[in-house]
Amino acid sequence: MKIEAEWMRGGTSKCWVFETGHLDQTRANLDDLLPRLFGSPDSRQIDGVGGATSTTSKAMILHRPADHDIDVDFTFAQVGIEEAAVDWGSNCGNCSAVVGLYAIEKGWVVPTGNTTRIVTRNTNTGQIIVQLIPTPAGALPIVPDAHMPGVASAGYRVGLGFKDPAGKTTGKLLPTGEATDTIVAGGTRWTVSMVDAGAPVVIVRAEDLGLDRARYDSWVAGVELQLETLDHIRRQAAVRMGLAPTVAEAARAVPKLAIVASPTPSDPDCDVNVMMLSMGKPHPALAITGSIALTLAARTRGTVLNAITGDTPGGNLKLRTPAGVIETWSEERDGSLLVGVDRTARTIATTIIHLPEALGRAVEASLASATQ
Amino acid sequence: MKIEAEWMRGGTSKCWVFETGHLDQTRANLDDLLPRLFGSPDSRQIDGVGGATSTTSKAMILHRPADHDIDVDFTFAQVGIEEAAVDWGSNCGNCSAVVGLYAIEKGWVVPTGNTTRIVTRNTNTGQIIVQLIPTPAGALPIVPDAHMPGVASAGYRVGLGFKDPAGKTTGKLLPTGEATDTIVAGGTRWTVSMVDAGAPVVIVRAEDLGLDRARYDSWVAGVELQLETLDHIRRQAAVRMGLAPTVAEAARAVPKLAIVASPTPSDPDCDVNVMMLSMGKPHPALAITGSIALTLAARTRGTVLNAITGDTPGGNLKLRTPAGVIETWSEERDGSLLVGVDRTARTIATTIIHLPEALGRAVEASLASATQ
Repeated sequence: MKIEAEWMRGGTSKCWVFETGHLDQTRANLDDLLPRLFGSPDSRQIDGVGGATSTTSKAMILHRPADHDIDVDFTFAQVGIEEAAVDWGSNCGNCSAVVGLYAIEKGWVVPTGNTTRIVTRNTNTGQIIVQLIPTPAGALPIVPDAHMPGVASAGYRVGLGFKDPAGKTTGKLLPTGEATDTIVAGGTRWTVSMVDAGAPVVIVRAEDLGLDRARYDSWVAGVELQLETLDHIRRQAAVRMGLAPTVAEAARAVPKLAIVASPTPSDPDCDVNVMMLSMGKPHPALAITGSIALTLAARTRGTVLNAITGDTPGGNLKLRTPAGVIETWSEERDGSLLVGVDRTARTIATTIIHLPEALGRAVEASLASATQ
Repeated sequence: MKIEAEWMRGGTSKCWVFETGHLDQTRANLDDLLPRLFGSPDSRQIDGVGGATSTTSKAMILHRPADHDIDVDFTFAQVGIEEAAVDWGSNCGNCSAVVGLYAIEKGWVVPTGNTTRIVTRNTNTGQIIVQLIPTPAGALPIVPDAHMPGVASAGYRVGLGFKDPAGKTTGKLLPTGEATDTIVAGGTRWTVSMVDAGAPVVIVRAEDLGLDRARYDSWVAGVELQLETLDHIRRQAAVRMGLAPTVAEAARAVPKLAIVASPTPSDPDCDVNVMMLSMGKPHPALAITGSIALTLAARTRGTVLNAITGDTPGGNLKLRTPAGVIETWSEERDGSLLVGVDRTARTIATTIIHLPEALGRAVEASLASATQ
């Protein structure tokens, strides 16, 4: 059995891109089929297409819906490596960047104007992501020439615009109804902002942690001394935002915690210095969903972040992270708000994956007996 | 520009398989083209087909020679990961196993009888490898069913028979002319055998190192206490075998050193316990070339290994390694000797790799100006 797939890079991830129609032909359960194709379970994925790391063991499954408001529905699958299992629980921001490019390359969407807009919907989260791809003179250039940090070669620039991202988890941009709240932890009162946009995030001021805003490179060491207090803040925020019934029951990954400070006046390259905590540790960069949440927080009067950035009339926001400065953008149009960030993407290979044995045999046999 | 390639697993490696004709169409230098296709230089190879490990950043380049005695010429390329460079200096035994299967799958060789013999020649080393693939009733089975240690799923069984492997580096199976020699190192006289077959190897007796043959799992700890002495033995062997002019100039990788002992009488599963040193450390398994050298050493009267195994009339030899027992085989036919080991192989995907920019433009331009 053979299965068509495109192997694509989206941002700093590699991703196998399938169409539902091609997968359906196998008549196999995707929770069995994807691990088999990827070579799992095996820490090296030596007998399959997986790359044996979390950023290279990913699949996107694409579908053209009957709904004419949406060009492409897409479902993200994080394929297990040592386990023959698939996690369908979240989207991957980096991999999302392949969807619009795929639609143009396959002729699903005809490039129009200097920028082509592809309306995509992630089925894991329900989030609509409008993808903006430069198509000068109405065509995708033959040779891509856009660059991004963390990727050595050029790709096509893809703007990922999250449509009306506020309140997707809790129903409200400000789940407590307030732009700032006070949380007591480690014997101190902390002024924080809690926002839900892209992902739930609680925002803490670096100065309250005693971090030196002029020495961003000293933050990791300073933060690591206060991880226990920061996690206590985060767990209380989980309860305040309605994400957990008690502090003890707060999840490890939600909400995320962001530490922010204004840059020094001599640093014109960014609007705010940011350090995220992820799974209890300082994160070397900033997830796309986190950058969306911070952008909406900056746009919202009264938050601790808005106090740093002021209103951002142009809509663009430059966030310094340990991995470099990330720029986000905002666009109001037809009564909707797009909040976005740019990535690059390209197709690495057009492939036909070989599946030696028919996993769908049991299904075929049961179908045959059912119709007798 | 698009380039056809098959992505195949050979043994415990993944390998990109190209035909010279397809690569020639790019008019690019392979030392530039392969790193670009693989995504190098980049420790993650995130923008290319490479797998970011030494066993998944490999290419095989295949060619059907005019010489009718050879079915396929193949060249192995170890593609750099952090460096945009290609190492053409050696063959990869595991990847060799894809060549015969490719020839059958592409119709270059028509399966004949219950076992099809494909005569392949590695151009890196000049070694002819006769590949034996089971083809019951004259056909490759649709579903492969052969298993091997280190690979979770089934593949096609491929026997790799090294034709007349003796003396490929030094000209002689026994470079010193003797089946055993005495080397003095660490104040002790060591009885060793030096053989050149597949690769140059010096063989040391485990008992001389004070290792307990009944406790194979204790060898690593015992060997690690004597690494300096063992390297001294190895360097003297390099000089005796004519591989280096002085002990100081001996290469780190050649010859390899093997430690051997007879198994306990209660262990009928193997003929000899083996531990190889590679780059100065105990190796977790046994390279294919090393297994060929040990098999010829076992067949040669008077070596320290022949004293353990005795003559092996059937030609098969079972070697215990930390990763499990490896079985080699020998076949005398038409005045030649084949010494071999079995692997499995399969095609993971049939692909067209996208090369965004024409690397060959400079060549095209210079060709164009040369013909004006």
